[in-house]
Amino acid sequence: MSREAARREALRVTATALGLDAVLVTNRLNVRYLTGFTGSNGALLLRTGSSAAHPADLFGTDGRYTIQAGTQVPDVELLVDRATVPALAAEAVRGGAGRIGYESHDLTVDGLAALEKVLVDAAAGGVVPELRSVRRAVEAQRAIKDDDEIESLRRACAVADQALAELAAEGALRPGRTELEVGRELDARMLALGAEAPSFETIVAAGANSAIPHHRPDPTVLREGDFLKLDFGATVDGYHSDMTRTLVLGHAADWQREVYQLVAASQAAGRAALTVGADVVAVDAASRQVIVDAGHGDHFSHGLGHGVGLEIHEAPGIGPLGAGSLASGMAVTVEPGVYLPGRGGVRIEDTLIVTDDAPELLTLTSKELLGL
Amino acid sequence: MSREAARREALRVTATALGLDAVLVTNRLNVRYLTGFTGSNGALLLRTGSSAAHPADLFGTDGRYTIQAGTQVPDVELLVDRATVPALAAEAVRGGAGRIGYESHDLTVDGLAALEKVLVDAAAGGVVPELRSVRRAVEAQRAIKDDDEIESLRRACAVADQALAELAAEGALRPGRTELEVGRELDARMLALGAEAPSFETIVAAGANSAIPHHRPDPTVLREGDFLKLDFGATVDGYHSDMTRTLVLGHAADWQREVYQLVAASQAAGRAALTVGADVVAVDAASRQVIVDAGHGDHFSHGLGHGVGLEIHEAPGIGPLGAGSLASGMAVTVEPGVYLPGRGGVRIEDTLIVTDDAPELLTLTSKELLGL
Repeated sequence: MSREAARREALRVTATALGLDAVLVTNRLNVRYLTGFTGSNGALLLRTGSSAAHPADLFGTDGRYTIQAGTQVPDVELLVDRATVPALAAEAVRGGAGRIGYESHDLTVDGLAALEKVLVDAAAGGVVPELRSVRRAVEAQRAIKDDDEIESLRRACAVADQALAELAAEGALRPGRTELEVGRELDARMLALGAEAPSFETIVAAGANSAIPHHRPDPTVLREGDFLKLDFGATVDGYHSDMTRTLVLGHAADWQREVYQLVAASQAAGRAALTVGADVVAVDAASRQVIVDAGHGDHFSHGLGHGVGLEIHEAPGIGPLGAGSLASGMAVTVEPGVYLPGRGGVRIEDTLIVTDDAPELLTLTSKELLGL
Repeated sequence: MSREAARREALRVTATALGLDAVLVTNRLNVRYLTGFTGSNGALLLRTGSSAAHPADLFGTDGRYTIQAGTQVPDVELLVDRATVPALAAEAVRGGAGRIGYESHDLTVDGLAALEKVLVDAAAGGVVPELRSVRRAVEAQRAIKDDDEIESLRRACAVADQALAELAAEGALRPGRTELEVGRELDARMLALGAEAPSFETIVAAGANSAIPHHRPDPTVLREGDFLKLDFGATVDGYHSDMTRTLVLGHAADWQREVYQLVAASQAAGRAALTVGADVVAVDAASRQVIVDAGHGDHFSHGLGHGVGLEIHEAPGIGPLGAGSLASGMAVTVEPGVYLPGRGGVRIEDTLIVTDDAPELLTLTSKELLGL
């Protein structure tokens, strides 16, 4: 059984428990997760029962992707139709489905209206099937990574580590260069090392810009004595790495060392709190308290971390407003920061896997305060 | 008045005509178009009336983007709230809006439910405002590019032209290399030339793979005598270029020349049909007929082209199933192809601007059959 088939079986268990006859999966990444298909238009009809005429799974796409679907989704029956989702819904009705699950966080208002019309038409005067949201059932499944996914995340993190190491070794992170130049080189290096794309818009923030949590690289020139904050990642097999390192160009001033050590201590506390069963609010608090105790609580303006995988931000959220607890196999970031407006800021972020033992650290770049 | 302010005024005219008191714009690219904001979370409340207490426009985002909003959206009042869209909706109710437009093609089913709840709560027992879809009103506006947008598209196309020219000049497109290597070099070169990102997943298809319209680059090795199809683009200022060139590695065989000349003739016919007022179905037909007449109609399996701008595919669609006609200022692609399964295929694609005279060609790379 392929890994995708195993994931579909897990979803089938959920769907059966929800009393559904079928589930229409439309979210692009959920479709990829459950089938392996990477094209821009695909959907999955998953049935809790099956017959010779109506297979348990049916993958839908349009004519552009017939060949790609055959290669990437060899183990699922294929339906090719320009109106992919309505066609799958009509097929569900033909198979006798009375209760059909759909993803209400993904389907648009227009999409639902189109679906309802298809069901009425396909029922042809008979009983119209009922649509029920499955909420984020697939996302909940995706929060716990299997071995293949963890290996992809390892590789994505390794590409980011290597890209930064090469830039540092070549002296590319030096006074006189601009944030934009450094950002583009980081991106280009990750691509050269095999990344499909950067994980998100790379953040390069020098000097006072480092106090802006999500600064976009601009023509700001790096200067001696500046903080340089780099928040970036690589995508490999669709999986995202996420890492932030903050360094000082030249000699660190005392205030810079102080802020850095504080964030490093907070980050270590957060990593130490990543245990199976830990409440996500408590994990955030363990890291945050270190910063609050030092009187900088107001300067740590965001949550501690987030899950990472096929999306750069996915379940679980780790923050004061989060809910739920950690489980073995979750991939999460730990990224506290202290931002002093007008002066500078420090964020230190790793991507890690929660395990029954200590978490596995995937972003291996040193967290010593690096003076370049 | 900023270009974004002018765009908001145009939307206000539409909203007034639709009898709306306000419009909630949630689509990320529409928000960018109307405000200049490039962050991941922002929404716009646009009112058809205004007062000192309730400005005509209100931009909402969350605390991560306070500074960025101040820089990118200086001329619109700012509302910072984690629950951005509900907060804007509540503000619309406080301003007395009775009919609120929303984007039903963008808002999810869950998003609409949240919005409806906010309206009921904010009405506090009074009359609950009515929600009405504005459909793709902003997309319709976006289909016609202003001068700033055309300049961004020119630059995006120039980056792609330059990247391909450099790779060709350096001999990077030669037998022995793999599709993946060529694709990554194209991407890296576009980034080095100032692209924010590739416009989409770069297509590099060698030999028989060139018969697959949307082939993903793989370890296939380029061989002497192969077709090499490159479909790629650069993103500049958020605007996408889109170009396909097909060449032969070494000497072209007769069948390759024949297919190439056929597609080139079809593409020229398509470009010639790009006139103001032309029906999109007729434009497709003008190009397609050339291929049909040569007996290859079945081997041209997709539409002729599409609008391009902040999205790689946007209005207008140019194909047998399209609707509407061309207007001056539209940016479109013309990309016929002939695909011979198992042998190879040719697609030739340009990005052009429809004008009152001949269309302006933005992708300037030669369309002579290039033998490298």
